[in-house]
Amino acid sequence: MPIVEAHILEGYAPQEKSRLTRALTDAVRFVVPAPDEAITVMLHEYPKEAYARGGEHRDPAPARPDPVALVTRYRAAMETRDLNTAEACLGEGFEMVFPASHSMKSLTELIDWAKGRYRFVKKTTEGIEAFQAGGSSIVFVRGTLAGEWPDGRPFSSIRFIDRFEVVDDRITRQDVWNDLGEVRSA
Amino acid sequence: MPIVEAHILEGYAPQEKSRLTRALTDAVRFVVPAPDEAITVMLHEYPKEAYARGGEHRDPAPARPDPVALVTRYRAAMETRDLNTAEACLGEGFEMVFPASHSMKSLTELIDWAKGRYRFVKKTTEGIEAFQAGGSSIVFVRGTLAGEWPDGRPFSSIRFIDRFEVVDDRITRQDVWNDLGEVRSA
Amino acid sequence: MPIVEAHILEGYAPQEKSRLTRALTDAVRFVVPAPDEAITVMLHEYPKEAYARGGEHRDPAPARPDPVALVTRYRAAMETRDLNTAEACLGEGFEMVFPASHSMKSLTELIDWAKGRYRFVKKTTEGIEAFQAGGSSIVFVRGTLAGEWPDGRPFSSIRFIDRFEVVDDRITRQDVWNDLGEVRSA
Amino acid sequence: MPIVEAHILEGYAPQEKSRLTRALTDAVRFVVPAPDEAITVMLHEYPKEAYARGGEHRDPAPARPDPVALVTRYRAAMETRDLNTAEACLGEGFEMVFPASHSMKSLTELIDWAKGRYRFVKKTTEGIEAFQAGGSSIVFVRGTLAGEWPDGRPFSSIRFIDRFEVVDDRITRQDVWNDLGEVRSA
Amino acid sequence: MPIVEAHILEGYAPQEKSRLTRALTDAVRFVVPAPDEAITVMLHEYPKEAYARGGEHRDPAPARPDPVALVTRYRAAMETRDLNTAEACLGEGFEMVFPASHSMKSLTELIDWAKGRYRFVKKTTEGIEAFQAGGSSIVFVRGTLAGEWPDGRPFSSIRFIDRFEVVDDRITRQDVWNDLGEVRSA
Amino acid sequence: MPIVEAHILEGYAPQEKSRLTRALTDAVRFVVPAPDEAITVMLHEYPKEAYARGGEHRDPAPARPDPVALVTRYRAAMETRDLNTAEACLGEGFEMVFPASHSMKSLTELIDWAKGRYRFVKKTTEGIEAFQAGGSSIVFVRGTLAGEWPDGRPFSSIRFIDRFEVVDDRITRQDVWNDLGEVRSA
Repeated sequence: MPIVEAHILEGYAPQEKSRLTRALTDAVRFVVPAPDEAITVMLHEYPKEAYARGGEHRDPAPARPDPVALVTRYRAAMETRDLNTAEACLGEGFEMVFPASHSMKSLTELIDWAKGRYRFVKKTTEGIEAFQAGGSSIVFVRGTLAGEWPDGRPFSSIRFIDRFEVVDDRITRQDVWNDLGEVRSA
Repeated sequence: MPIVEAHILEGYAPQEKSRLTRALTDAVRFVVPAPDEAITVMLHEYPKEAYARGGEHRDPAPARPDPVALVTRYRAAMETRDLNTAEACLGEGFEMVFPASHSMKSLTELIDWAKGRYRFVKKTTEGIEAFQAGGSSIVFVRGTLAGEWPDGRPFSSIRFIDRFEVVDDRITRQDVWNDLGEVRSA
Repeated sequence: MPIVEAHILEGYAPQEKSRLTRALTDAVRFVVPAPDEAITVMLHEYPKEAYARGGEHRDPAPARPDPVALVTRYRAAMETRDLNTAEACLGEGFEMVFPASHSMKSLTELIDWAKGRYRFVKKTTEGIEAFQAGGSSIVFVRGTLAGEWPDGRPFSSIRFIDRFEVVDDRITRQDVWNDLGEVRSA
Repeated sequence: MPIVEAHILEGYAPQEKSRLTRALTDAVRFVVPAPDEAITVMLHEYPKEAYARGGEHRDPAPARPDPVALVTRYRAAMETRDLNTAEACLGEGFEMVFPASHSMKSLTELIDWAKGRYRFVKKTTEGIEAFQAGGSSIVFVRGTLAGEWPDGRPFSSIRFIDRFEVVDDRITRQDVWNDLGEVRSA
Repeated sequence: MPIVEAHILEGYAPQEKSRLTRALTDAVRFVVPAPDEAITVMLHEYPKEAYARGGEHRDPAPARPDPVALVTRYRAAMETRDLNTAEACLGEGFEMVFPASHSMKSLTELIDWAKGRYRFVKKTTEGIEAFQAGGSSIVFVRGTLAGEWPDGRPFSSIRFIDRFEVVDDRITRQDVWNDLGEVRSA
Repeated sequence: MPIVEAHILEGYAPQEKSRLTRALTDAVRFVVPAPDEAITVMLHEYPKEAYARGGEHRDPAPARPDPVALVTRYRAAMETRDLNTAEACLGEGFEMVFPASHSMKSLTELIDWAKGRYRFVKKTTEGIEAFQAGGSSIVFVRGTLAGEWPDGRPFSSIRFIDRFEVVDDRITRQDVWNDLGEVRSA
């Protein structure tokens, strides 16, 4: 115990059902301190004609894509400066804030802003956490940065954390914090 | 649709059941893009003698306390330097990392470290997000800092984000990122 | 088989739950020719805090009153010409059609129209049937009329059927058919 | 809310399941004034070996055919005087009552009785309502009649209502009311 | 897994529900080799007005008393030769067969038959097993006998097994096997 | 009523599901004296990806083979002295006790012991009862023996009962009681 039954329309892929069972398992654990082995999740799947809301049959909505996959795609594209791919990950009204930056709306704006901060930077990911908050999926990525300062000296092991808001499989907001300023000014 | 039924033992308080229904609702939304109105959660509650696992009746585990309440208590205590209360929020093996700090184990260590960084600091909270990841509850708090530099000049609107890991109603890890270094060195 | 489980909020009276179990039983029988004994209906009732739609707890809507009770009250009031009580049974936009009448909007209009058709009439009810059709409850009442023609001769055993539409516990439409014309002209 | 789960054996056609979900939806609405969107019906279907009553597996009973289809077939046959087809729609002990008629047992009896009432008549259907009452399906058809009186004068827009009782996919009773007598004698 | 939900009317005592959950757990284990911890049984209990079969509410049948308690009472009464109490445990048509005995119908017949077989006998119970087979509960009791032969020599550790059929809280059949004959003739 | 729903993983054969539905039916009847027709059992079967325990999908455990089939195979092999087949039915630590025998561990030990008790024996089965008790399946077989005494005289209609414990599709214990000693010494 506890046991969770979720009733869904047929049509979700196995990995989507796995995501759902895991999310429901974590939801239970958030409140009930049951041992893992005691939390069971079962999905009842209904063909279209065996389900009606308001007396009408319904088509299943396609599953929300995994926001972690989207964020991973975006980050990879940014690392290789593949701006076309990265842009395609962004939703309408996208906004991003970097350490001590103003709010920026476009990737070119970001690239301009970043100039002079470092020659290049590589990210090592240490943890990704994703969850839902109302209509948005939230993805947190944290890890460390390594690269070269403008003067060519190397840096490494500088902590960062990124927060992404995802709506309809597009990133609508990115917030970035890191210790570059602390280290640079040390 | 979807509809979620969770089967739990009797004994949870209304606000604990509310936390559970909200967590299950968000778990569904993480995968299924149903309109809010279409996601229903129902809790079946069983008296002890109407539930058995392995042929044995079970006592309900007390609900996991809300980790947001714990983190809020801790942060309030730290702000007023009520170290006894703050210590009581920490679990065994507690560890914390602040911007460009080494790993610290105790609050006094933190206070020593923080000396010389600012005269005082006040936090304004803009968002709190909590979710479960395996056996830990994760709480993110983000907002802005205002205070005075060591030389008495004021600062404000400096972004921060804190990440807390909570196990068994105790904070076992705190990670802090903020823009103080960026601003100070600007 | 079949077995029907209905999940409802707590707060319905026993007779309302009886109405619901009977309506669900008939709904099943409309399609599945199971013997009566094989049709089981079970109601799961949830306290408010154990149910959420869109992440929000809900208050149970008061049960729709039995439309048969409303129609019975109205018919009794009309028979005794207690027009105040009868009026109180009618909803906005009420309309009625009697044999070969035009559409009438008020009870006084009806009484005017009926003048000259008979001195008085009594109804014997032989069957009442009620069901739901979308947002309206439909009630059919059928039976026989007895009374006196304008010239004092008696009549009896004249068939009638009334159809009522009920919305929000008010009659919004009444349609009447009977054999008075056939018999009178015979 | 409410949510209805019906457990049935496998083997029903999609349109039969649609009829069942609609009937269950209306059954709920008869008592619970929920908005349409909030009423969900789900059918669990079991293969024969996954269901037992009294320890025995059961074969699914074929669905009760839609009584509206039967009544529609019968009325079409009567309109074209295809008496063979119409007879095939009638069950044992069939009985019918027309305005001011005695109880009639056969279609030829009806045709004899109707002679002299009109030269011909066409029906325009305005509403069909069907529901279950115990072991019988009840179908109401209402609309208007148009045709010619015996003397050749035309008539039209004369209201009628027919009530059919259907048992085992056969009509066992027909009751007819209309305003022909009122109009004729006017 | 597996998970068993049983739907019953309200009114059973906690120990009756415990018997039911244990019997259901064993029923699952008879077929599915799940670890004990993975078998969950949940009882849904319905107040009378929330349950209908064939459209009618039902009163819960009182639980079948534990047949082991009945058999234990009977055996204790037989051991102390409290024949009134023992008789009260027997149902109509009661029959018993002892080693190489004919079928006997009454306790006095048994006592006559047993005379000359031993001066007295005490039973030590080593195992009791009870289960349901169709309309009868079956109880097996096995253990050893100790006592004195007619000539006064003692005996002990002689195996026995009794099989009881129980219907409506009365023993309707008892079959006894033991090794007395083997030992006596050795 | 009662109604039992069991939730299992997909992959069980129809006859295994039949065994499960029968066992669950008897489990209910052990406590609730419902008429047979009123006890319904339904199996929900889940594909692997629609079920998770502790957040992990699981493979269904193969069904426990029917212990009655195992015991029947063993008894047939013993009757024809096919010791290889019979041995293959026995589990580790197998033990058997026959009337007034010591505990025996092997079939050859049994055959030695039985020598001199009869020339041959045939069993007529009158009843087989099987059920689960914790981790063991228990099978009772009862009936009568017929054969020849060592001196060639025939015997027949001698009652016996065998009790088998079955774990993991192997017999781990056999206990035998019969009236041979009583009859022989008579």
